[in-house]
Amino acid sequence: MQLLFEDVRVGSVDSMADLLLAGDRRTLARAITLVESIRPDHRQQSEQLLSQISAATGNSVRIGISGTPGVGKSTFIESFGLTLIEMGRRVAVLTVDPSSSVSGGSILGDKTRMEKLSRQSDAYVRSSPSGLTLGGVARRTREAVLLCEAAGFDVVVIETVGVGQSEVAVSRMTDTFMLLLQPAAGDDLQGIKRGIMELAEIVVVNKADGELKAAAIRTAADYQNAIGLLHGHRQTWQVPVRTCSGLTGDGVDELWLLVQQHQQLMLDSGQWIERRQQQAEEWFWTETHELLVERMRKSPLLDKQLMQALDQVREQNVPSVVAARSVIDGYFSN
Amino acid sequence: MQLLFEDVRVGSVDSMADLLLAGDRRTLARAITLVESIRPDHRQQSEQLLSQISAATGNSVRIGISGTPGVGKSTFIESFGLTLIEMGRRVAVLTVDPSSSVSGGSILGDKTRMEKLSRQSDAYVRSSPSGLTLGGVARRTREAVLLCEAAGFDVVVIETVGVGQSEVAVSRMTDTFMLLLQPAAGDDLQGIKRGIMELAEIVVVNKADGELKAAAIRTAADYQNAIGLLHGHRQTWQVPVRTCSGLTGDGVDELWLLVQQHQQLMLDSGQWIERRQQQAEEWFWTETHELLVERMRKSPLLDKQLMQALDQVREQNVPSVVAARSVIDGYFSN
Repeated sequence: MQLLFEDVRVGSVDSMADLLLAGDRRTLARAITLVESIRPDHRQQSEQLLSQISAATGNSVRIGISGTPGVGKSTFIESFGLTLIEMGRRVAVLTVDPSSSVSGGSILGDKTRMEKLSRQSDAYVRSSPSGLTLGGVARRTREAVLLCEAAGFDVVVIETVGVGQSEVAVSRMTDTFMLLLQPAAGDDLQGIKRGIMELAEIVVVNKADGELKAAAIRTAADYQNAIGLLHGHRQTWQVPVRTCSGLTGDGVDELWLLVQQHQQLMLDSGQWIERRQQQAEEWFWTETHELLVERMRKSPLLDKQLMQALDQVREQNVPSVVAARSVIDGYFSN
Repeated sequence: MQLLFEDVRVGSVDSMADLLLAGDRRTLARAITLVESIRPDHRQQSEQLLSQISAATGNSVRIGISGTPGVGKSTFIESFGLTLIEMGRRVAVLTVDPSSSVSGGSILGDKTRMEKLSRQSDAYVRSSPSGLTLGGVARRTREAVLLCEAAGFDVVVIETVGVGQSEVAVSRMTDTFMLLLQPAAGDDLQGIKRGIMELAEIVVVNKADGELKAAAIRTAADYQNAIGLLHGHRQTWQVPVRTCSGLTGDGVDELWLLVQQHQQLMLDSGQWIERRQQQAEEWFWTETHELLVERMRKSPLLDKQLMQALDQVREQNVPSVVAARSVIDGYFSN
C-alpha cells in the first residue's frame, strides 16, 4: 500500500483531478487508494480532489448487486458489463468483499477477478478491502463511486456478498438494487439473510442454462408469487423476477432494460432525485457523526471515558441516555 | 402539557422514584411526561430518575406490535393484554401514533383507546405524541419502557402503525416483533411497506372470526409458504403465521405461548442478551450523536453553517464528506 501512496505527492491533486476527468484509469485507481487512506494528509488531499471533481459526478446509473457466494456473481457481472460496453457504455465495478484482507484485497482483487471485463478499455474493476469497512462495507465506497463518475464511467456497479448489513449499506448508495439467486432444487435453501430480499428492486435467478434451466424458471415463478404476496401490489415499482445465464449471456440484456425502466419510473415519479438527495443527506450526517467521534476519540482521556460508558451500557447498569450525557457534558466542560 | 409538568418539582425526583418503584400508575404517567419533555431542567431530572431506577429495569418481555390501520390492532392488544392479566401478568402498552399531534396525542390517547384494558389495575396504556419523534417513533419510548419496568410491568407492548421507519425503530427496542395482518380476499392487498414483513418474528392474521375465518386461515397458509420461501429454513427461529380474533379472543393465548417460546429460544442460544446489549449500545451512540449535534446547533453561527452545508449537499454540489469536514473543522478551530 505504501508504494501506491507515494504516487500521491503534495501539490499533485490538481493534476490528478485533470487526469481523472480525462478518464485515465491508472489515475482512478490511485485516486480510490487515496480516498481509502486514513492518513490525515491523504484525507485532506482526497477531500480537495473530491471538491474539484464534484461537478462531474452524479450522472451514472448506480446499481447494487448482491447474492450469496456460489451464485455466480462474478460471471454475471462480467457478462452484464461486457453487454453494456457493447452498447457503448463505460462500466465501473466496485467490489466490497468482506472476506478480503486489508492489505492484499484491493491489489489482488483488481487482477484476479472478471479478467475479460478488466481488460476492456471502457471498464474498470476494483475490489475494496473490508478492513476499511463499517458493517461489511467499505466506508469510502461512496467516494469511489464519485471518482468513477468523474472518470466518465456512466454505469457504476457495486457488488457485495450476502452478509446483511453490507446490502443495506449498498442499497443506500445506489439507484437500483439487484439480487442474484440460484435455481433451487425443490424446497432448497438460498441462505438469504432476513431483510435482503426486501431491498431487491430486481430479482435474478442466475445459472438458467443447461440442465438447471427448468429449475431456474420454476424458482423464478415461485419467487415472483412470494414477492407479489409479501410486497402487495400498490407499489410504484413491481419487483420483477427474471432468469438469466451469466455463462451464456441469455437474459442479460433484458436485465439492463429493466434497470432502465426502473430508473425511468423513479425519475418520472420524482423518487430518483428524492432518493439521491436523501442518500447525500444521510451521508452528511454519518460523516458529521464520525468526524465528531473521531475528534473525541483522539483525546486519550475521553476515549477511555467513552469506552467505559459503553461497557456500563452493555452490562445494562446505566441507561444509555445517562451514559452518553455524562461523557459529552464532561467533554465540553473542559 | 404545562399543567402536567408543574407536578414535577425540583427535589421531587427521589419521591418520584420511590412511588414509581412502588408501582404507582399516576407517577408512571408523570414520569413518562417528564422524560418526553425537552426542557433542559426536565432532561436533567429525567436522567436522574432513570439512574435511580435503573436497577429495577430490563426484566420485562418487550413486544413490538405493528399492522396497518384497520387491521384491528387496538382490539387485538386489548384482548392480548386482558389475557395476560388473567395469567397474573402486569401489562404496559406504549403506543407510538405518527398521526397524533404533539399537544393532544398523549393525553387524549390515554383515555379513548383500549378502555377495558386501561381500567385494569394491572395495566397501563399510553400514547406518545409523534411530535417528539425521530422517523415516526417517539424518541423517548426507550426510556418509557424502562419506567414501565421500574413500575413493575413485566410485559411491555410497543404498538406502532405501518409507516416503515417506525417498525424498524420498534424492532430495535423490543425482544419479539409481531406483525398483524388482515384476512385477504384472494389477491387482495395488505399495503405492507417493504422491509416490515422481514422484521416480523411472529405473524398474526387477525379477524379470524365469523365469515372471515376461512379467508384468514387461507391467508395464513399463503404467508407461511411465502415466508418459508423467502427466509429459508436455516434460521434458529422459524417465523410462525397464526390466525386469531381480537374480537372473540380465539387464538390469543397461543400467541403468548409463541412469544414465550421465541424468548426461550433466544435466551438459550444467547441471542437474547446479545440483542439487548446491541440495542443498548446502538442507543448509546445515537444519544452521543444527538447530544453532540444538539451542542453544535445551540451555536447560532454553527447551526447556520450546518444547515447551509446540508443544503449544498442536497443540491449535490458538494460531496457530503467535504461539507461535513468543513463544518466540524470550523467548529473546533474556534
